[in-house]
Amino acid sequence: MAGEYKPGERMSGEVAASDQLHVSRTAYREAMRILSAKGLVQSRPKTGTWVSERSKWRLLDPDVLSWIFESEPDEALLASLFELRRIIEPEAAALAARRRDQTHIDRMEAALAGMTEHTLTTEKGRAADQDFHAALLEASDNPFLTTLTSGVGAAVAWTTIFKERRSALPRDPVPDHQEVFEAVAAGDPEWAHRAMLDLVESAFRDTQRARQALRP
Amino acid sequence: MAGEYKPGERMSGEVAASDQLHVSRTAYREAMRILSAKGLVQSRPKTGTWVSERSKWRLLDPDVLSWIFESEPDEALLASLFELRRIIEPEAAALAARRRDQTHIDRMEAALAGMTEHTLTTEKGRAADQDFHAALLEASDNPFLTTLTSGVGAAVAWTTIFKERRSALPRDPVPDHQEVFEAVAAGDPEWAHRAMLDLVESAFRDTQRARQALRP
Repeated sequence: MAGEYKPGERMSGEVAASDQLHVSRTAYREAMRILSAKGLVQSRPKTGTWVSERSKWRLLDPDVLSWIFESEPDEALLASLFELRRIIEPEAAALAARRRDQTHIDRMEAALAGMTEHTLTTEKGRAADQDFHAALLEASDNPFLTTLTSGVGAAVAWTTIFKERRSALPRDPVPDHQEVFEAVAAGDPEWAHRAMLDLVESAFRDTQRARQALRP
Repeated sequence: MAGEYKPGERMSGEVAASDQLHVSRTAYREAMRILSAKGLVQSRPKTGTWVSERSKWRLLDPDVLSWIFESEPDEALLASLFELRRIIEPEAAALAARRRDQTHIDRMEAALAGMTEHTLTTEKGRAADQDFHAALLEASDNPFLTTLTSGVGAAVAWTTIFKERRSALPRDPVPDHQEVFEAVAAGDPEWAHRAMLDLVESAFRDTQRARQALRP
């Protein structure tokens, strides 16, 4: 393995790095292009490739999020992610309540049934959970909000897996989702906003509890 | 030029496309990796490269935004962008009012002075405008909100250029920014929220007016 780099650090040259990782130079160069496209590294003329400051990273890119969350993120980053979710998701739910059509209602209902049947301890249940949130964001009919789906979806999947890894799920998540569904189906934006805020807050509390349970 | 592709379309093969664009196959392949990293295209085994559906695009990636806005975006996409700004930016301003330190206050004040001196009809004035918004989002101290800086910053720059292209700026934007600055400096989250919402609403009205003026 190549060593771990920190933001602002200069990386090994292509030849040394590709040898060390036992990959071809072409493969290494292509990997660097992808990292660069996601704002993680930057090539500077004559001095090589540098790890970018975190403010340049496309933090909400689903790949970047999943790379960060492969190791356990710090408390502050987790709190920031939930802060963003508290801003975006209740507003998206309110918009969804205004704009949803029958297709969205059907899809959310099917997803809820999937979550109930399979529970979040299974792959199928977690896929249903993600589909619930994806359908909700699509119903909000804002492509910029929808593009956040994959980022937030990845984060939701991660936090669920993270919780699930250490303890049985402390709480049945279906009632929270059921309430969001009912508010959206009823076309009531204020109710949808409130229900979604509750859902995000509960998810945050569960995650914090799971982390505390882990501490010695 | 290669033809314009639509979401869901299959692209020409690498050999034909690189010949047509007069670029090397390596350069073409590297460009495709970048597009793929940003969710715009997808390679499928044996069938080649396809343009992804828009829901897969990283719409908030600064590069993707700028590519979309090189041509004139439709009314609906513009409205969606401002809808997102109305959700994010007032909340970010409220957080900034809670968390800003002297560095942020100084930087916003300097940016305001730059906007006043150079006006948004100059490159320098527009850079000051962007720095104002960047300092504000940094003061919110949430890396996920900060990562939206570049996306929203790019969009703000674009909408300003877009407005500026067709007519003299219809309104002095400094008073709106001054009020946001004062609310953040005073550490008053509710005021900051209100002032930022006004700023975004005004910017949206200006943009709509500029587009209407253009119509025959």
